[in-house]
Formats: sequence, structure tokens, C-alpha cells
Amino acid sequence: MKAIQDCYPPKYAHCYGCGHGNPAGYQLKSYLQEGITQARFTPGMQYSGGVPGHVYGGMIASLLDCHGTASAAAFASHERGVAMEEQIEPPRFVTASLKVDFKNPTPQGVELLVRGELISVEGRKVRVALSLHANDVVCATGEMLAIELRAGA
Amino acid sequence: MKAIQDCYPPKYAHCYGCGHGNPAGYQLKSYLQEGITQARFTPGMQYSGGVPGHVYGGMIASLLDCHGTASAAAFASHERGVAMEEQIEPPRFVTASLKVDFKNPTPQGVELLVRGELISVEGRKVRVALSLHANDVVCATGEMLAIELRAGA
Repeated sequence: MKAIQDCYPPKYAHCYGCGHGNPAGYQLKSYLQEGITQARFTPGMQYSGGVPGHVYGGMIASLLDCHGTASAAAFASHERGVAMEEQIEPPRFVTASLKVDFKNPTPQGVELLVRGELISVEGRKVRVALSLHANDVVCATGEMLAIELRAGA
Repeated sequence: MKAIQDCYPPKYAHCYGCGHGNPAGYQLKSYLQEGITQARFTPGMQYSGGVPGHVYGGMIASLLDCHGTASAAAFASHERGVAMEEQIEPPRFVTASLKVDFKNPTPQGVELLVRGELISVEGRKVRVALSLHANDVVCATGEMLAIELRAGA
């Protein structure tokens, strides 16, 4: 199954967090299955928070942000009746706003699960509910408003 | 003038974004002067957004997050009538929630200015208004609720 980010047109694929065209980056991969998006990622041990043993907040925000824009593209495509990989130029969304609520410390050294659920699609605006889990504990939740780039942008 | 983060106790100084104890990290440095906090940072060119030439969203969230918790510590100290560097164990705040509004693309290759202003201090809770500027343009705004770690945490 092809990751949502691997369907991004090459000109939009340089994101440090998730671009297949950025070899230095995290290369986050997100998938839509049965109405839910998921991504799995294990941050390196250097990405510590203030107290060692926990992932720093910026990484958590990054994962929610990149997974959120990927989710928006996949959900919008699905609403239009077409999968990401079926389109010559699939939609690409950018973040208008992102709210992150840090619920529990995020442990280092374990695979994190990032999930996305569609809240609404309204033209070029997509709202996504996000969450980040470690060892089946919710560590963070989030909400994103994503905006679709105009064709040729 | 000593940076706010350089006053953090060593046990809380491992944050990838701003810890003086994390040599791999960004080592963001924030300063409180005349009631406003400021930090300056130029992200490396690898931290591209989807379209090259712009900083990726996760970096922007990271800078606001680390600058926000530093600002909270400095503002809380100031409210208590004591500077960060005058305390044996200065306060250390963590993020409870962070909202980021992306207003304009953030250009790569220029120094970014991150600013913080105090909204309120209520016991261990501090609210901070944040903004990120490039070439005198506001690229992002944010609001943080930060919580002070309990002594001995």
C-alpha cells in the first residue's frame, strides 16, 4: 500500500517531516484505511525533552502536523470519490492552524502511533482530529485546519 | 546577558529544541527584556517545507514551543520579583497546550525572530502569546498554556 506522502507531486515533496524528496528528513509515512489515517514513527534518542526519557514537544507537534496535512489530502480525495494514488496531481494541503494538547509524557525508545480522523470537508478547508499514542496511552491530541493549495501554486 | 534556557537546572536541560545539555539539538536561546521575550534562530536549509524555500511547519511549532516554555519561566519569575539567574532552582515549565496559526510562508535562509508576551499568571499556570517573524513579516502566531513542574519532579 502506497503512503499518502508518496503520492505527493515531486514539487511538493521536500518537507523535512514527511517529504519523499527530502533525504535528510523524518520521511513520515501515513496511510488511510477504513476511514482512519495512521502513521508509525520512532524518534531517535537525541529528540529528548527537558528530562531525558521523553520526546520533546516540537517532535510531537511535527508528527501531528505532517500526519494532519497528509490526512487532509487523503480524506478530501476520498470525499471526491478517488484515492490519492489514482490522481495525476493529488491534492496537497498546508496547515492553517494546529492545536496540540499534551496529555501525558511521550516515552522515548518506543514506536509512536499517530492517528487522524476527519471532522469536516468544506471546499478547500479540511478539519482533522489527531492523536498520538505510545504503548496504547494517549500522549497528545490535536486539531488541525488544513487548506488545499490551489492547482499550479 | 544569560539566556533563560541557560538558567534551567541541568536535570531539565536536555530538550532537543532548547536544552544546553543537548549538544545535538537547536539550543534555542531566549531573553526577557522590557517585558517581552525574544529569541533568534536561523534554521538549516534541510528544514524545508513541502515546497523548497520555506521552513517546514514542525520547525515553526518547535520554536514557538521552546520559546514559550522559556517565556513562561521568565514571566513567572518576574511576577515573583526575582530573575531567572538569581534562583538556585529556577522554575521549569512544560507545555499543556499550544495553538499555532500559520499566517504567511516562513522563508528559509533568513534569521527568524520569535517573540513572547505574557497573557496571565495563575499559580502554576502561565499563558503566553507568541509570534514568529521573518524580514519584519509575521509568519505565525501562537498561544501557549504552560504548567510549572513541581519542585522535585
